[in-house]
Amino acid sequence: MKRFDLLIHGAEQVVTVAADGARAKAGAAMRDLRIIPHGAVGVSRGLIAYVGPAEGVDIGDAERVVDASGRTVLPGFVDCHTHLVFAGGREKEFARRIAGATYEEIAASGGGIAETVRATRAAPRPDLVEGALERLDSCLGFGTTTIEIKSGYGLDEENEIKLLEVVAELRELHVVDVVPTFLGAHVVPPEYRDRRGDYVALVTERMIPEVARRKLAESCDVFVERGAFTMEEGREILAAAVRHGLRTRVHADQFTAGGGAELAAEFSALSADHLDHAGPESLARLRESGTVAVLLPGVSLFLNQPMPDARRILDAGVPVALATDMNPGSCMSENIQLMGSLAAMQMRMSLEEVVVALTLNAAAALDRSDRVGSIEVGKKADLLVFDVPSYEHIFYHFGVNHLTMVVKNGFMVLEKGYKEA
Amino acid sequence: MKRFDLLIHGAEQVVTVAADGARAKAGAAMRDLRIIPHGAVGVSRGLIAYVGPAEGVDIGDAERVVDASGRTVLPGFVDCHTHLVFAGGREKEFARRIAGATYEEIAASGGGIAETVRATRAAPRPDLVEGALERLDSCLGFGTTTIEIKSGYGLDEENEIKLLEVVAELRELHVVDVVPTFLGAHVVPPEYRDRRGDYVALVTERMIPEVARRKLAESCDVFVERGAFTMEEGREILAAAVRHGLRTRVHADQFTAGGGAELAAEFSALSADHLDHAGPESLARLRESGTVAVLLPGVSLFLNQPMPDARRILDAGVPVALATDMNPGSCMSENIQLMGSLAAMQMRMSLEEVVVALTLNAAAALDRSDRVGSIEVGKKADLLVFDVPSYEHIFYHFGVNHLTMVVKNGFMVLEKGYKEA
Repeated sequence: MKRFDLLIHGAEQVVTVAADGARAKAGAAMRDLRIIPHGAVGVSRGLIAYVGPAEGVDIGDAERVVDASGRTVLPGFVDCHTHLVFAGGREKEFARRIAGATYEEIAASGGGIAETVRATRAAPRPDLVEGALERLDSCLGFGTTTIEIKSGYGLDEENEIKLLEVVAELRELHVVDVVPTFLGAHVVPPEYRDRRGDYVALVTERMIPEVARRKLAESCDVFVERGAFTMEEGREILAAAVRHGLRTRVHADQFTAGGGAELAAEFSALSADHLDHAGPESLARLRESGTVAVLLPGVSLFLNQPMPDARRILDAGVPVALATDMNPGSCMSENIQLMGSLAAMQMRMSLEEVVVALTLNAAAALDRSDRVGSIEVGKKADLLVFDVPSYEHIFYHFGVNHLTMVVKNGFMVLEKGYKEA
Repeated sequence: MKRFDLLIHGAEQVVTVAADGARAKAGAAMRDLRIIPHGAVGVSRGLIAYVGPAEGVDIGDAERVVDASGRTVLPGFVDCHTHLVFAGGREKEFARRIAGATYEEIAASGGGIAETVRATRAAPRPDLVEGALERLDSCLGFGTTTIEIKSGYGLDEENEIKLLEVVAELRELHVVDVVPTFLGAHVVPPEYRDRRGDYVALVTERMIPEVARRKLAESCDVFVERGAFTMEEGREILAAAVRHGLRTRVHADQFTAGGGAELAAEFSALSADHLDHAGPESLARLRESGTVAVLLPGVSLFLNQPMPDARRILDAGVPVALATDMNPGSCMSENIQLMGSLAAMQMRMSLEEVVVALTLNAAAALDRSDRVGSIEVGKKADLLVFDVPSYEHIFYHFGVNHLTMVVKNGFMVLEKGYKEA
């Protein structure tokens, strides 16, 4: 048997994002990509077996050799915040927003999330699986090799469980690693509008125990926002999640400063997501709790709202990740690369901060920074080969997919040919 | 011989953008896409021979039939403003801007356009051709079947002519229709900084006559802006262009209100481009002159500046087109579809206005609305087949290329297979 199943050889740059076991990078560390010029990556049995200079690596030692000259190798991207399983498009609502209606006005009139909930509840399970598989193909095509998927369009016991079962099926059917999150507390469903407490009780007393018992999710998320859940309701829900062994995360301070970030810090949540309106004290608390700030520039673009103030969050020493938030109502896109370009162009994140935010820090937000998110010996061989000579080009030359190969668990799962890029 | 060389049959929507010979659509007309449900398009000898309902069209009458069920057919996109021929990337400058430097500061310190001019002057002609051919492939992959390319990185007689000769070579080598524009008046080159009049004389007395005599460009563009050319210089240059039989266009009011739009109106220019700071009187004059407003949202995104106020321009009755402005310094992207999404998300252009702006109005900006820009019998068979059930999806589901086929002059030039989208 040869030393390597696959050897990527002679890359212009191997961008390792190596972290020496750190959970996530914050501050100055986010600027250190640990790049190997003229590098090589050797893969054996699904794991990275070598990363270092190409010189001295014998190409005869590999079953397959990929010539990466002139190309750039990155760790697989981790999309750590999506709502990928749903039915029905919301392009009519998109047109309505262009004509002037706000996201919150549409929600108030029975559209928005409620529309997707109706369509998703009505959808046969195979349709949900098929739609999500197509989207996962699209994600993979942009370089996402690990993805988080939330429930949250069921909003009753039967349908929240159905969604998480669909997510479980995706894990079986697709090569992308899928990390499930329970978001029964996405919004209060219409039928509970006048008895919110009953819905919170349903989430905490029935859904969370079943989700945890059947291991249908790794973490529990809650949308703390005007029109969604209060801080007190959020606390009750996350406390139940912790009691049942789930990790926590919070949709925090997206449209208003509602205390979501502080709640995330209180629970040492894996992530606090959105954070458009989080104040300085909340950020200081997030830093202490080791929570990853997940910023979602695609949402701001899609809803025509100001971009999250990444510099303020970075300067507060909070580790930052970027994600798509792929969903039909506030960001209909699987393009994780574009989120990196948006962060650079519109949020003044340096290209180094962008790379860390799409890889290691996103992995930390999913409690997987020990397995993915950087190119280090012993980690999963999830690798991207871009047809550009440096990582800067990937985000600078924007809206264009420069990816030519995706290696997942050591297997070449995507390889583009002539004029297919 | 059969009636059709190619028949696209059973499309969910054929979006014709038919204009009945109008030069461009303004105002309410931009909202009428003239969509044929369950439609068909027949092609013969490079031209559209039939467009209408699929019912009643005999598929036996065609050499090749494409089943477009569930798909949407649009006219080929026209990218009516690019600087596609250049050497050297400006990703380091991109990083500098992220760190806080402005576009104008970088230009003042010898970077910006001057940097691309140095690299382009130094580049061997075959390298320029090869780089541009790759970018044209990328453009075609997003659905651009007609493209304008400006000179403007030569800025001396030898190199401006070299660039236009490269553009002429691209016309020979690529299937995309290439429309050349002379932009010798892009900026005043460094060596003429203290004798601007000499450069204007070089442009008007030597370059324009040669460009016109050798038919190296169809139109002459000038960048009227603080740091580029004054309105008076612009007038002198455009007057020379008109004397030599060239059409005109103006980079107008991008960073400041510099009178560019009024100059465009004065010359009945084909297009006035950018228009971020054009006032109401200028817009009224553009409307009278029949000039197309070319808006470039990718530039605003890339430079982190406010988006052009499309609604104000549309409401003034000026026909609006959208383009990429593909160039290494202010919009490094060939993705014309993304420009449509940006216009919808960030400029409140309706999806119907977006479609007209990417097709018929962009064709009018290139004086080609009689040949391309809509699906009408007798026009060029430049057709796009998207794997979505309606035109809204193309822009709503953003950053993702839904194109599955491109027909150019009646030939299938791009066809994506399983999981290549």
